[in-house]
Amino acid sequence: MSATDPMFELELVLAPKGSRDAGQVLYRQLRAAILEGRLAAGAKLPATRKSASFFGISRNTAVEVYDRLLDGGYVVGRRGSGTYVAERRASASPPLGPDTGATAGRRLNPFWLRPDVTDAMGFWQDPPARPAAPDALLVDFRPALVDSRLFPHEVFRRVSAKALRGLQRKPASLKSPQGNQGNFALRAAIIDHIALTRAVACQTTDVLVTSGAQQAFDLLARALVTSGETVVAVEDPGYPPLRVPFAAAGATIVPVGVDEEGLIVEQLPAGVGIICVTPSHQFPLGMAMSMRRRQALVAFAREHGAVIIEDDYDGEFRYDGSPLEALRTSSSTDVVFYVGTFSKCMLPSLRLGFIVAPEWAMRTLIAAKNALDWHCSTQMQVGMAVFVADGHLARHVRKMRDLYRLRRQLLLESLNGELSDWLEPIPSFYGMHVAAFARAGLDLEQKSKILLGQNVKMHALGRYYLGPNVREGLIFGYGAADVSEITHGLSALTRLLRGAEQSSAAYEVARGA
Amino acid sequence: MSATDPMFELELVLAPKGSRDAGQVLYRQLRAAILEGRLAAGAKLPATRKSASFFGISRNTAVEVYDRLLDGGYVVGRRGSGTYVAERRASASPPLGPDTGATAGRRLNPFWLRPDVTDAMGFWQDPPARPAAPDALLVDFRPALVDSRLFPHEVFRRVSAKALRGLQRKPASLKSPQGNQGNFALRAAIIDHIALTRAVACQTTDVLVTSGAQQAFDLLARALVTSGETVVAVEDPGYPPLRVPFAAAGATIVPVGVDEEGLIVEQLPAGVGIICVTPSHQFPLGMAMSMRRRQALVAFAREHGAVIIEDDYDGEFRYDGSPLEALRTSSSTDVVFYVGTFSKCMLPSLRLGFIVAPEWAMRTLIAAKNALDWHCSTQMQVGMAVFVADGHLARHVRKMRDLYRLRRQLLLESLNGELSDWLEPIPSFYGMHVAAFARAGLDLEQKSKILLGQNVKMHALGRYYLGPNVREGLIFGYGAADVSEITHGLSALTRLLRGAEQSSAAYEVARGA
Repeated sequence: MSATDPMFELELVLAPKGSRDAGQVLYRQLRAAILEGRLAAGAKLPATRKSASFFGISRNTAVEVYDRLLDGGYVVGRRGSGTYVAERRASASPPLGPDTGATAGRRLNPFWLRPDVTDAMGFWQDPPARPAAPDALLVDFRPALVDSRLFPHEVFRRVSAKALRGLQRKPASLKSPQGNQGNFALRAAIIDHIALTRAVACQTTDVLVTSGAQQAFDLLARALVTSGETVVAVEDPGYPPLRVPFAAAGATIVPVGVDEEGLIVEQLPAGVGIICVTPSHQFPLGMAMSMRRRQALVAFAREHGAVIIEDDYDGEFRYDGSPLEALRTSSSTDVVFYVGTFSKCMLPSLRLGFIVAPEWAMRTLIAAKNALDWHCSTQMQVGMAVFVADGHLARHVRKMRDLYRLRRQLLLESLNGELSDWLEPIPSFYGMHVAAFARAGLDLEQKSKILLGQNVKMHALGRYYLGPNVREGLIFGYGAADVSEITHGLSALTRLLRGAEQSSAAYEVARGA
Repeated sequence: MSATDPMFELELVLAPKGSRDAGQVLYRQLRAAILEGRLAAGAKLPATRKSASFFGISRNTAVEVYDRLLDGGYVVGRRGSGTYVAERRASASPPLGPDTGATAGRRLNPFWLRPDVTDAMGFWQDPPARPAAPDALLVDFRPALVDSRLFPHEVFRRVSAKALRGLQRKPASLKSPQGNQGNFALRAAIIDHIALTRAVACQTTDVLVTSGAQQAFDLLARALVTSGETVVAVEDPGYPPLRVPFAAAGATIVPVGVDEEGLIVEQLPAGVGIICVTPSHQFPLGMAMSMRRRQALVAFAREHGAVIIEDDYDGEFRYDGSPLEALRTSSSTDVVFYVGTFSKCMLPSLRLGFIVAPEWAMRTLIAAKNALDWHCSTQMQVGMAVFVADGHLARHVRKMRDLYRLRRQLLLESLNGELSDWLEPIPSFYGMHVAAFARAGLDLEQKSKILLGQNVKMHALGRYYLGPNVREGLIFGYGAADVSEITHGLSALTRLLRGAEQSSAAYEVARGA
């Protein structure tokens, strides 16, 4: 902190020293300064200790003020480096011209800010970890995350540059709607990749390149949903952001339960048009769909004229057990849309994924892709094509699988050991996370909030459910957490559960039970 | 052609030599061989002369057979290098399982294959130039094209690599829905770029990065349109692919005429909710919207609670005249959505564009962007950010503006010279194309078809109209055609128009007029 610290230069009207309102008054003043731009985006706030002393309040009060600013999104905490004024966020309130704005604002489609929609899309958004513990190890157990530090950036840069040089030698780039299905070399690389890792046999003409799995879902929603008519079945629990594009297209979303064999096909409603499943590694519970259920699902789809969307988000990482094929086999090409992504086996920031689609749907999908954004960046596609074709993806997957296997073993040992009094891990063979049900009635949502205060990010199962039949449980993602972080996080969890048990026992004792 | 040419190894049942059906029979046989995969995608067909001799048919018949295969999309012609079997296209007919496919096929949203939609989206798709003239100069006068050979690929590669190295040093890439508005450095670079080139003043928080202008239109459609209610006014003539995302979102599209001052504001229907305009350089006619009309448009929008979408697709290229600002000024921030793109000033294959949005709409736009594809590729965004921030874009725009100015002068001289008997150029100050109206009743659609046969691609105005009030005219794009190609193409056009006049005069004489 210097004498010119911007926060200390503000003209703040503070409460009298020692006042009980001191925190509230300081919070309001700082909030106003941020909203009015007197504290600029990116400005670093002094440490709470220094603020406390400067403003004549207690350290606890200063921490509370910072927490409230964090909760409101006015400031952000950066791991190990303090608290900063957040970028000004667009306000939800009507704007400048009093009448104009209000009228124009009414033209916004209300769907996107519906609480259920923002909840589902805010799935990856957690309150930031407490800035009060900047030196603490941050453990991130959230599933489907990737540690970009382990990615061979240098190799990707090199092959991208090579591919771009090839691109440069080609004549003028003219628009070709036929080519918008995706770069041919990338589609060729994709069919080899999924033939090898997932035993999916298809041709380049069956593949359409998308901007990640999310665009694949959106594209399928727009090609397959008739607004107000189509019923879409989703696994419950499942991946919340998958539901939103289908709901946006006007579909009715119906949650269908899963058990140890995956989606309970018998519970599918007769009028369903689209069935979304994660057969290799149920998201988030982790079990594989049984062969019996797979056959029943395909038969159901054929009988009812429905289609199946197979989200195979992390099928590259298989550890043991007799591997099951993808649901999309040579005998189900007519009803299965297979969605793959490079977000898990490479990096989500690449924004590349693909659909293997039935032949009868490809023309419609290409037409919709054209209207959405014509095609994915050629530069990214040609780089990816060479990366995959030259074997770098296979190499990276092997490396990560070995790493993930260790992390997974560590997790399973703990789940089957010191955590087994409270949690029951769900068997799985694939992926980047394991899930566990609670053995007794534990409020794990509340526990995960406490853990967040200890810089351990862990999802309770509750947020994955759409319907009312919620089972308590926890998800242990190991894409972003390394061995030492896993150890640290599991200790924190064990301490918490043990403490809860003891205080609960103490409570029972106190109640004379 | 070698002895092992795949086409000559096929077992074809041909018509007797000299038969009048020889062409028809050969066509059917080749078509079947392609559909069944016996002639693989990418295989090169022998030259017509050699086919004629091998199959014992006349050269003309061979050319006819090839032309029919080209028309049907079974083969493609590549400039200067012959005829190749096309990639197998998804068929529109129902698939494998007889009942299944048909039933599942019925689940496709019929919107995407409606003829008006495929027409609009097929805007950039022309029949290929005749393979019969492989050595002829191909002249491409279509507007909004960019010659990628003039792009500083090496610089872009270098700055991308630099940016990627910076990315690598950052910690694990976790999902941050707040960040999906676009990379901060890129948004900062964009606001500097448009402040400089377009006098658009805004903050980083006003900018959302999109996958090109097409995704910007789609995003705006989804955020602003209420299905079955919203009326969208588009300029007529205008850019057909703009209309599709709005129609897909359930809007009613209303064409509104333009005159020498741009959109005729008085013709806007009262119930309109969204008005799409190209004020700097009307697409495709080229005139700028007058100040009077701009003021009337903003006033209209305010009065009727409508919003304006300003598509500023090539505003970086300004040549002369007193420049008009963008429509989105500091006094119209409440009602104008400004859409910019890097497709024209850099390359369309990058798939990067942006929206400068009113504050009241940004939260909804970000929510919709998340559901569409979370965000644009980080790799592309950071590369672009450095390219723009380091001044490479400004340098490239200066270089291209000088080049375009020369091409433009050449075109205008010709339009005001030897072509002035037939065409009347429309004044403009910006962009990468000029348009001209026909002076007399000329069927320019038919003329453009004849020119295509001479390897000159030129759009007649007809395809840009949505309503019935069509004016005849031609578009002269100079993004892809260089000085020698322009000269060549204009000669072909002049010859054609002169010939048409002479034969028309001859016809009048013959009729005794």
